[in-house]
Amino acid sequence: MEKTKRTERITAVTRLLTDNPNQLFTLPYFCGLFSAAKSTMSEDIAIVEAALKKHGLGRVETLAGAAGGVRFRPMLSRKDAFRQVEDISRELCDPQRLLAGGYLYWSDILSSPDIARRMGYIIAGEYYDAGADFVLTMETKGIPFALMTAQALGVPLIIARRSSKVYEGSAVNINYVTGRGSIETMALARRAVKPGQKALIVDDFIRAGGTARGMMSLMEEFNVEVIGSAFMLAQENPSERHISGDTSLMLFSESGPDRLLVRPAPWLSQERDETL
Amino acid sequence: MEKTKRTERITAVTRLLTDNPNQLFTLPYFCGLFSAAKSTMSEDIAIVEAALKKHGLGRVETLAGAAGGVRFRPMLSRKDAFRQVEDISRELCDPQRLLAGGYLYWSDILSSPDIARRMGYIIAGEYYDAGADFVLTMETKGIPFALMTAQALGVPLIIARRSSKVYEGSAVNINYVTGRGSIETMALARRAVKPGQKALIVDDFIRAGGTARGMMSLMEEFNVEVIGSAFMLAQENPSERHISGDTSLMLFSESGPDRLLVRPAPWLSQERDETL
Repeated sequence: MEKTKRTERITAVTRLLTDNPNQLFTLPYFCGLFSAAKSTMSEDIAIVEAALKKHGLGRVETLAGAAGGVRFRPMLSRKDAFRQVEDISRELCDPQRLLAGGYLYWSDILSSPDIARRMGYIIAGEYYDAGADFVLTMETKGIPFALMTAQALGVPLIIARRSSKVYEGSAVNINYVTGRGSIETMALARRAVKPGQKALIVDDFIRAGGTARGMMSLMEEFNVEVIGSAFMLAQENPSERHISGDTSLMLFSESGPDRLLVRPAPWLSQERDETL
Repeated sequence: MEKTKRTERITAVTRLLTDNPNQLFTLPYFCGLFSAAKSTMSEDIAIVEAALKKHGLGRVETLAGAAGGVRFRPMLSRKDAFRQVEDISRELCDPQRLLAGGYLYWSDILSSPDIARRMGYIIAGEYYDAGADFVLTMETKGIPFALMTAQALGVPLIIARRSSKVYEGSAVNINYVTGRGSIETMALARRAVKPGQKALIVDDFIRAGGTARGMMSLMEEFNVEVIGSAFMLAQENPSERHISGDTSLMLFSESGPDRLLVRPAPWLSQERDETL
């Protein structure tokens, strides 16, 4: 079989690893793909690892042992994460985004593949070692952000619905009280998740946390452990909050009837323990 | 400034290009990033282009001129596309997926980041040169597939809602007749799109095409041209179809009360004009 050049292997390995985040590739797999020796392939991977690390483009990890292999974890340095969240915060402060009733128009931000992907990288960076089996979100607006987080974590996305649908088969329905005091329904197909799994809740927005607590109750019904929750935007100092320990990217506060202040969450400006 | 090695530049360029699909990077941008001469950088990019092409991992394109630059377009060869769609088709034929009433359970397939991404690459590969300004979908189930298609095309995703929401501001509402004969509403915020733009419709499923035609009517209200429509799954030989010229990945037919046949769409087994 034709021998491949190092530059060719490095390009292909970079693309394969980064296009399949958090998925383990074995060394023999790459050796077979490029007809290369293990030692050669290990050198290639070390080069890719060092280059991505140096340019803040994510982390390549090599796991030793029989079940070992190489995987790529998308990640932003805290500095890059803060700067990107700051850009979006500034955008959200635009007075033209404020609608009647004090609502914020940000559907364009939420469904931007580019923003969803980058915000997903930041959240994934906080949860790689938590071992989530899937990401759970509630339809509709949080889906892009949740999907991109799930992609970075290399796990499925599960979408809870506002009501059970005939095309989802038998479902578990729960009722929950929203932050605005109304009673709503949330539904999930019985076969969507398995008992004993671990869930990471990801959604666009949290105020009092009624919906988030609803998702937690739903997971209880399935005997699924919730290992954390992450939101794009959270109310700063809400009068009540039904959940705790959530990871939010931005905080908002109302400063007068026609002004909304949005800022990056303080944890983003703290140094991480480890260097990226 | 420190000089960089070719292998380091190639790794970083591969990641930067592939993480920002269909976005134009200028040569001077890369030269500045790596303190490299234009001729060196051009050679690097030629290596990345050849390696990705050889391994069927997508296409790097160099555009000459003042507005020129380099971009990456995710793409699958027809052979790979067919094989991947065939795998999903086979999975969908599993009798356990058939629900009461003849419905198909495939929420897990639709919200898999991995499947959505790969199916998005295939659809994007058919529409790169059509010049869509955005991808339009109707909530909820098609969102992951539509988002990944939009990401590959490097354009925003716009999500039409079942009803207008207070947090989306003033909206355009239309009524449409579904394939099952009921009258439904579809809504989109006025500020979501601009007159004169071009839309690519992407959704999970098409039977008679009522919802798709609804999306077309909605776009007419905004003076937006629909340049195409793409679906993950389409009914084969429906008794009526309200739209034409759609690109579908899989076709299904009902063969008896408790059996559904799903197969890759025939165009996937045809050779493309150009080689990937």
